Amino acid sequence: METPMETPMETQIELRSDNAAGVAPEIIEAIVAANVGSALAYGDDDWTARLRGIVRDVFEHPTAQVFPVVSGTAANSLSLSALCPPWGAVLCHETAHIIQSEGGATSLFGGGAVMRGVGGDGFRIDPRQLEAALNSVRWGDPHHSQPAALSLTLPSDYGTVYTPAQVAELAGVAKARGLRVHIDGARIANAIAALGCSPADLTWRAGADIISLGGNKNGTLSTDAIVSFDDAASAELVYRVKRAGHVASKMRYQSAQLSAYLTDGLWLRLARAANEAMTKLAAGLADLGVESINSPEVNMLFVRISDAVADALTDAGLLFYRMGRGEARFVTSFQTTSAEIDAVLAAVAKALE
Amino acid sequence: METPMETPMETQIELRSDNAAGVAPEIIEAIVAANVGSALAYGDDDWTARLRGIVRDVFEHPTAQVFPVVSGTAANSLSLSALCPPWGAVLCHETAHIIQSEGGATSLFGGGAVMRGVGGDGFRIDPRQLEAALNSVRWGDPHHSQPAALSLTLPSDYGTVYTPAQVAELAGVAKARGLRVHIDGARIANAIAALGCSPADLTWRAGADIISLGGNKNGTLSTDAIVSFDDAASAELVYRVKRAGHVASKMRYQSAQLSAYLTDGLWLRLARAANEAMTKLAAGLADLGVESINSPEVNMLFVRISDAVADALTDAGLLFYRMGRGEARFVTSFQTTSAEIDAVLAAVAKALE
Amino acid sequence: METPMETPMETQIELRSDNAAGVAPEIIEAIVAANVGSALAYGDDDWTARLRGIVRDVFEHPTAQVFPVVSGTAANSLSLSALCPPWGAVLCHETAHIIQSEGGATSLFGGGAVMRGVGGDGFRIDPRQLEAALNSVRWGDPHHSQPAALSLTLPSDYGTVYTPAQVAELAGVAKARGLRVHIDGARIANAIAALGCSPADLTWRAGADIISLGGNKNGTLSTDAIVSFDDAASAELVYRVKRAGHVASKMRYQSAQLSAYLTDGLWLRLARAANEAMTKLAAGLADLGVESINSPEVNMLFVRISDAVADALTDAGLLFYRMGRGEARFVTSFQTTSAEIDAVLAAVAKALE
Amino acid sequence: METPMETPMETQIELRSDNAAGVAPEIIEAIVAANVGSALAYGDDDWTARLRGIVRDVFEHPTAQVFPVVSGTAANSLSLSALCPPWGAVLCHETAHIIQSEGGATSLFGGGAVMRGVGGDGFRIDPRQLEAALNSVRWGDPHHSQPAALSLTLPSDYGTVYTPAQVAELAGVAKARGLRVHIDGARIANAIAALGCSPADLTWRAGADIISLGGNKNGTLSTDAIVSFDDAASAELVYRVKRAGHVASKMRYQSAQLSAYLTDGLWLRLARAANEAMTKLAAGLADLGVESINSPEVNMLFVRISDAVADALTDAGLLFYRMGRGEARFVTSFQTTSAEIDAVLAAVAKALE
Repeated sequence: METPMETPMETQIELRSDNAAGVAPEIIEAIVAANVGSALAYGDDDWTARLRGIVRDVFEHPTAQVFPVVSGTAANSLSLSALCPPWGAVLCHETAHIIQSEGGATSLFGGGAVMRGVGGDGFRIDPRQLEAALNSVRWGDPHHSQPAALSLTLPSDYGTVYTPAQVAELAGVAKARGLRVHIDGARIANAIAALGCSPADLTWRAGADIISLGGNKNGTLSTDAIVSFDDAASAELVYRVKRAGHVASKMRYQSAQLSAYLTDGLWLRLARAANEAMTKLAAGLADLGVESINSPEVNMLFVRISDAVADALTDAGLLFYRMGRGEARFVTSFQTTSAEIDAVLAAVAKALE
Repeated sequence: METPMETPMETQIELRSDNAAGVAPEIIEAIVAANVGSALAYGDDDWTARLRGIVRDVFEHPTAQVFPVVSGTAANSLSLSALCPPWGAVLCHETAHIIQSEGGATSLFGGGAVMRGVGGDGFRIDPRQLEAALNSVRWGDPHHSQPAALSLTLPSDYGTVYTPAQVAELAGVAKARGLRVHIDGARIANAIAALGCSPADLTWRAGADIISLGGNKNGTLSTDAIVSFDDAASAELVYRVKRAGHVASKMRYQSAQLSAYLTDGLWLRLARAANEAMTKLAAGLADLGVESINSPEVNMLFVRISDAVADALTDAGLLFYRMGRGEARFVTSFQTTSAEIDAVLAAVAKALE
Repeated sequence: METPMETPMETQIELRSDNAAGVAPEIIEAIVAANVGSALAYGDDDWTARLRGIVRDVFEHPTAQVFPVVSGTAANSLSLSALCPPWGAVLCHETAHIIQSEGGATSLFGGGAVMRGVGGDGFRIDPRQLEAALNSVRWGDPHHSQPAALSLTLPSDYGTVYTPAQVAELAGVAKARGLRVHIDGARIANAIAALGCSPADLTWRAGADIISLGGNKNGTLSTDAIVSFDDAASAELVYRVKRAGHVASKMRYQSAQLSAYLTDGLWLRLARAANEAMTKLAAGLADLGVESINSPEVNMLFVRISDAVADALTDAGLLFYRMGRGEARFVTSFQTTSAEIDAVLAAVAKALE
Repeated sequence: METPMETPMETQIELRSDNAAGVAPEIIEAIVAANVGSALAYGDDDWTARLRGIVRDVFEHPTAQVFPVVSGTAANSLSLSALCPPWGAVLCHETAHIIQSEGGATSLFGGGAVMRGVGGDGFRIDPRQLEAALNSVRWGDPHHSQPAALSLTLPSDYGTVYTPAQVAELAGVAKARGLRVHIDGARIANAIAALGCSPADLTWRAGADIISLGGNKNGTLSTDAIVSFDDAASAELVYRVKRAGHVASKMRYQSAQLSAYLTDGLWLRLARAANEAMTKLAAGLADLGVESINSPEVNMLFVRISDAVADALTDAGLLFYRMGRGEARFVTSFQTTSAEIDAVLAAVAKALE
């Protein structure tokens, strides 16, 4: 650290994943603050009661229920198990995290429910393709898994978002056939921050019945949550979450985190920091002539760079993923600093020389 | 409460459950210390690698694997799913936590595996009854669920322990019929501290193939663990834990906690504090003539007290559970202080007057 | 066997199980009669439509639905999966077939639902013990599997029956706590024949929501059925039965069998034959001084005989089960003839000499 | 029937599905022949022992095991549950019956295992696409369902077959990555008859570990079977089949059917009749100028006909499926007669005028 000005990336810069980021200081503080006295386990505590009220305020929904869980996979698969019967099908984009990266959790908790991929550009389900998929179902025929839930990844794993209007359109198509709607919101704070809409507008007002509210990629410590706007699903989840081993005895610490996260817009502030770092990175790379594959809507960018450039960046200490075929992925987090982006851009400029 | 100085229990004293205790300061420190820089998610981090080595040292086992999870229910049910096929049966004491208090988690993750209660005094499985249960099985007959795992709750939910010799005897009976052996060690630190044996002697050297290593009741924050001494089970658990949503992206914080917990005997020191508070409480109550139902082996005591005494204790600020029929349960934790025990005893003495 | 004319049991006599009996000639005729022309698979055929009407007539229930399946295990476990959520518990007698002899099928199809045994004399659930079991439940607490279905084995595996009044009493206790009621009627025809009641009186009028209607032990060919009086369960079963592989493409042959079975009282005639053979056997054995363990209510008798007598009976060609401890089980079927009973009694008389 | 020569199709001709055909007379005879005396239930009978020997002879495999079941869905899903762990994936053609038409049975019995469609022309998996699918897997990464079984539909639902060489090529690709291989042989007799190969050559010698042996579409009564060439799978299936309710107590009748079916080539004779009727139909339609969509390899033909022609055929009594977009499906069965084909062709000729 003696000569920081000379080598901008003497320490590593993390652009592999927002999942690799740490815990926000405000969240650590909330944990420490909750560590006073004793409190009944499994959610019978004041912090959890308070969280419920905060969730209802933030989402402007009078009966919303919140279930803290340890991971997005738990939030997604348990949510869907409450929407879809064992003989049902969950429709999602063919690139959705639930179908590609959760090891079949939705089928496990769904009692053998299946997932069906639907296509669409930009990693977003196309309403026409959703309609076609629903039209091709033999409804009422038990040979055919009956679509019962639509799951939207928002943002997608490729950093694209649905607007409230797009959610509403898809939810409308789905609800016309009796499906309920789930949002995999592992990075939903980034989407809300980018869209500038209210949490309610992007979720239940647009037709979502239940959401996975991500925290882990945006500053919480092993704490995501299910937020349910559907009373029937909420009633089931009391049992489903517990028997999946996802009711933490130390729930007060999860609830304290989520309360801090949702209070005074901390979640959106953290997400905005990540998004803004990405905006700066994308603009800088464009200025340098680097070809972008996507136009980043939140905090994820895919670019085309040569192996030589990639190697140079790696040598310079940048951590990122190479996707093959000359593509690279950069993801910013709430911890990414403006100085780090400057350093990355400097390293790219140098590598391109 | 008007004259706080006079009554020793001006603040409440927690004897309902060790589950209601908070997080140990050393654990909070470990979390904070781990909150530096970025680290790959899902266990590909240095803290988790280090934990693996610590577990192997502490348990003196060269290939032990450790899987941090959020709850004891997760640890138990996922462990058992790796030992017992869907058509199998898990044998446990008829009062075991897995059969009484986990909402059927073992059957969920076990693909419909069943649990069978076996009797025995002191909430311990009786080796003769285990043998009889195994002898009554129609082995190889698919009409009959085939026992495949023995699960020992150690300590039991009623505070009794198995000695290494008792574990070995039961494991011997079970292994003679091909079963593998699990220990539900939600409070295993209290047992090891009470028995004064080594972790290895109470577990794999006595025949256990896998254990649920509790932390949540003894100072950790939403962190228990599966410790597997069986390579085949370990290989399965990589997948089973993930698809159950129990692989935390922020695993480094769980690993850091568990490393601190197992280092320099912190886990046993915390457990010993709980046990010693109970020893003092039990002795004091006995001196006061209160009838004990059990002779506390770890940190749980059941006593017979009149409703009047119970009411007086409640009024005085003592938190404890009334079990019906004039019985009360007191549980100490690592946070219970000697002064608190003094205060409880003073309150009992006063109530008995 | 040297002098066949002298010993009445020159051919073997089957008293091991009614499950070992063959197919009734009327049922074979029904199969042959259905084997004309083509018919749509999976139940979209005239025979199945006709069966539905017959079931509604015989059970005097306007919306009853019938689902032919291949086995009693299928009928029981699929029925229960439609009554009990995955986090629920099925209560049954501790000796019930579903808990003892179906390899955990109810937990498989129930998504990890558990079974809880309840006690009672005569292999019948005692209403007081049922009430106590229900009172001990922590209702609404997800740590505790929530009882959702009561399953009555009628007759029990030990040949005892519940009267309509007894079913009604137990169903009343169960329904007061929100449970639905299933009858495992693998031998229900024998019970109805013995009780002389109507099918409706023993089932839905007494509170049963769904029954497993046995045929296989009483003359049908690989054909039992679920009869559901609960519309919600019926709606689920359309899917549950199919995805379990239990919708036969050749359903018309199952439906033709069941129609013949239920028409003109064939099922009760066959059952009555079995019951009457047992009555004669039991009376004859009593006359010979053989000690009965039970007083046979349908077609099953347990007696105490010496090993010497048992050996002599075996040598004489009688097929029966030795239960250990000097006990023997005799089961008659619709195929058991009066002559066979005479022969058995003669052999016993000779063995006792 | 008075003036048969004038209206060729005065009675209906069944070309909707071979599933709509009846039971072959030889099979009825086998059932009747087995209906003598008593026999132990659940497969402990002479007929089932005999069947085992016949299967080993016909498939030329010394340790093959056979499990009679009621349906192809049961055979497929139970077979696959023995090949694929709950965290695994079954690869199949994207049009496979198991993924399209079994209501998720494979995920149910597979404990939440998932199915992944692979592409390929002619409803056959393309080896290159299979290889690509396997190459894209993150092996050992629990986020990603691990392919563990390849399932080939042979013939496909569209009447195309794999040759032994094609099976071997695909099995080779699959086995190089550790997968085991299943054949959904709901119509495998038609394939073997068409290919003129031995049962062994098309199955285990080409790499199949387990097959679903169809009978229901080719003359048996509610009887298909699993034939396992994999000892580990066989050992599991003893339990898996039972707890799924698929072990018929009256197994002797299923075994007697399958024995007759496999003896003296009855299965191939029946299948050949269906294939030959199709050959005649396809040739005749081609002569009439009807455009075929496929070149029928077994007993299924897809043609393009106008709505007017389709209506005329329906009016004339022909039963067939309209697939939309001017397509029609014709399926012959072992019961389809040459005279029926003549009648169909005459009706088409008339309709085309």
